[in-house]
Amino acid sequence: MSNNISPLAPKSSPQMPDVKGVTCRVARAQYKDWDRCDLTFVELAEGTTVAGVLTQSKCPSTEVEWCRKALIAGKARGLVVNAGNANAFTGARGMEAVQRILNLASNHLGCTEEEIFVSSTGVIGVLLPKEKAEAGLQTAFTSKPCSWEDAASAIMTTDTFPKLATTSAIVGEKTVHLNGIIKGSGMIAPDMATMLGYIFTDAIVDAGFLQEMLNKATKSSFNCITVDSDTSTSDTVLAFATGQNDTVTLNSYSDPGADAFQAALNDLCQQMAHLVVRDGEGASKFIEIAVRGAESDESAKVIALSVANSPLVKTAIAGEDANWGRVVMAVGKAGEPADRDKLSIGFGGITVARDGLVVPGFDEAPVAEHLKGTDIDISIDIGLGQGNATVWTCDLTHGYISINADYRS
Amino acid sequence: MSNNISPLAPKSSPQMPDVKGVTCRVARAQYKDWDRCDLTFVELAEGTTVAGVLTQSKCPSTEVEWCRKALIAGKARGLVVNAGNANAFTGARGMEAVQRILNLASNHLGCTEEEIFVSSTGVIGVLLPKEKAEAGLQTAFTSKPCSWEDAASAIMTTDTFPKLATTSAIVGEKTVHLNGIIKGSGMIAPDMATMLGYIFTDAIVDAGFLQEMLNKATKSSFNCITVDSDTSTSDTVLAFATGQNDTVTLNSYSDPGADAFQAALNDLCQQMAHLVVRDGEGASKFIEIAVRGAESDESAKVIALSVANSPLVKTAIAGEDANWGRVVMAVGKAGEPADRDKLSIGFGGITVARDGLVVPGFDEAPVAEHLKGTDIDISIDIGLGQGNATVWTCDLTHGYISINADYRS
Repeated sequence: MSNNISPLAPKSSPQMPDVKGVTCRVARAQYKDWDRCDLTFVELAEGTTVAGVLTQSKCPSTEVEWCRKALIAGKARGLVVNAGNANAFTGARGMEAVQRILNLASNHLGCTEEEIFVSSTGVIGVLLPKEKAEAGLQTAFTSKPCSWEDAASAIMTTDTFPKLATTSAIVGEKTVHLNGIIKGSGMIAPDMATMLGYIFTDAIVDAGFLQEMLNKATKSSFNCITVDSDTSTSDTVLAFATGQNDTVTLNSYSDPGADAFQAALNDLCQQMAHLVVRDGEGASKFIEIAVRGAESDESAKVIALSVANSPLVKTAIAGEDANWGRVVMAVGKAGEPADRDKLSIGFGGITVARDGLVVPGFDEAPVAEHLKGTDIDISIDIGLGQGNATVWTCDLTHGYISINADYRS
Repeated sequence: MSNNISPLAPKSSPQMPDVKGVTCRVARAQYKDWDRCDLTFVELAEGTTVAGVLTQSKCPSTEVEWCRKALIAGKARGLVVNAGNANAFTGARGMEAVQRILNLASNHLGCTEEEIFVSSTGVIGVLLPKEKAEAGLQTAFTSKPCSWEDAASAIMTTDTFPKLATTSAIVGEKTVHLNGIIKGSGMIAPDMATMLGYIFTDAIVDAGFLQEMLNKATKSSFNCITVDSDTSTSDTVLAFATGQNDTVTLNSYSDPGADAFQAALNDLCQQMAHLVVRDGEGASKFIEIAVRGAESDESAKVIALSVANSPLVKTAIAGEDANWGRVVMAVGKAGEPADRDKLSIGFGGITVARDGLVVPGFDEAPVAEHLKGTDIDISIDIGLGQGNATVWTCDLTHGYISINADYRS
């Protein structure tokens, strides 16, 4: 397997500001035989609120079950992320290592176990080694604080680049910061599962309202990306608000700055989601699929994801082919209202087919030029209503097969 | 693109008996620039009944729309299949060539247009050339009758081998024959779409009852296979009963021999469905996925198809890896009731994981041996109820990418 950086990676990482009340540390737990930090410990100021979205998988990991339970109280003091072992499908014994981490971290921080959040990512079906987790965590406690980039690197598994995002919003006449780190590159190479994302802000946000805003932001970001249609047993996004910025408290959308904060959160989540797609396994093209004119927004999203998950559409884009026939096929199989003779399809802003027919005198050259690039736009007008949705995916290449099938040889 | 025969193809074609009342002829319409027959004309005896199952796509081809309409009367005298051009997404003008074919064939046979069935398969978005269809059909009318193998070959597009199946049943103390020809190898290479299957029997079967039996047979055959999860705009299976065998008429399951006929039809459809999977694009493994212990048969089927369509499971099998973690992931994402700690997973009859954990002392050697073969069995016990389902698929290899992405280079 190649460790080359994805050709779709951003040219540079953003400048990450400090977020008051957040201290990151990393250590080498040696979950795998590798020369890197693989345990991340984030200390959060007293009073930090938390919200989260977790995998819909019916077979979630122990860590996901724990986070779901701990989120009820909505308070956080610590986060521990283990990379290299997902501790998923390890039965009830999977909780043993998590329990050890909860004990250690809550004692260290002088808080309850419910204020400690834990994620693990990596090989499925192997118990997280308790001793390594414990030794790693003890080391992290006494390590020097690290940079955002170090933390983003320590949570990586088969990712080819660390993923960082930042933005800000004006709340109560003050600037609050939102930083995000995320990992994931498909539901991922040799047994390595999971998208894990963490958002940190210094704003003062009520936990229930933070959850409401995160749910909304997720709808147009993490729930609108797909690499290979496969869903991890461990997918987790957590948002922490330390409340260390001396500004107004956000309790509802009627509070001044709440809309601005929501917009910033939407933007941050979309940045983070795009970074995951840009590291899609074997990806050579970043694809935006915009559907409009569907009967509803929900219907538009089902159609958009049907196109985004179609192996035939994804291979056509890999082959730099404006194969609108495959797009029609994928619209048709979505099962949502559509009328062949009202459908229009475009690539790179150029309409290729309209009202169920190829555009008369269609000139392929500018479309072919667009498809040679790395960022591809597919637009689909269903022609029936007002429903819109945009999703993002990557192409399906030999690289994906090499990463996921060839590793045994 | 390679024309090598699939490594999963049967070693030999079955001996096909005559089916009284069925006469096949083929001709060269030259829908593409190739040296082969690509138009098939099947003449059916007077009194032939017909039933059909058609694509659920919301953007079906003109031919599918015609067949849906013609099936209402349940009578057939002729079938015309065009290979090389799907005539799909050609708008209202797509009907022009179909209308020409209906005129010619109904005049030739002295029947109504509603007794003529038409299918087309191949490139999407290009009008079926009327003149080629007409000339080809005229040639077919005066050609000598051909073999079943010739007909099965003339309907092929990117298939690597002709697909034939046969079986028989005892009805009213007489043997009736059921022959099938089918094409399809994924939702298929460079713009070539579609699974098209045709069943012919000399039994006497009421059209409504034939439809009931075909629906039942489809449930455990054509609806239980997947190559790449993509659905063609033209998928069609038609069953013709010529009634030329001097035996009892089948009107309902209370008629003697009806159960035997249903069993034979099930068997034939399953044979045909498996042949399509065995010609899956780039396939190197034929995979059977059997789910038991789900809450219902429907739930079991959703889970089985989730596993069968998972790119990560399919690439693991291509890599000859008993990666049960990916199977857990695919069970979990199906959204059906499942409990991680009750799940058992086996490969080749050997249980790998039980009750949510890898089997203690698990010996990988016999499983690895099984995975080196071409026919792979995955068994999944959900551990919750009595629901069962079995589906078939193939692995996902570099061959699939080469066929679907590399054709432009």
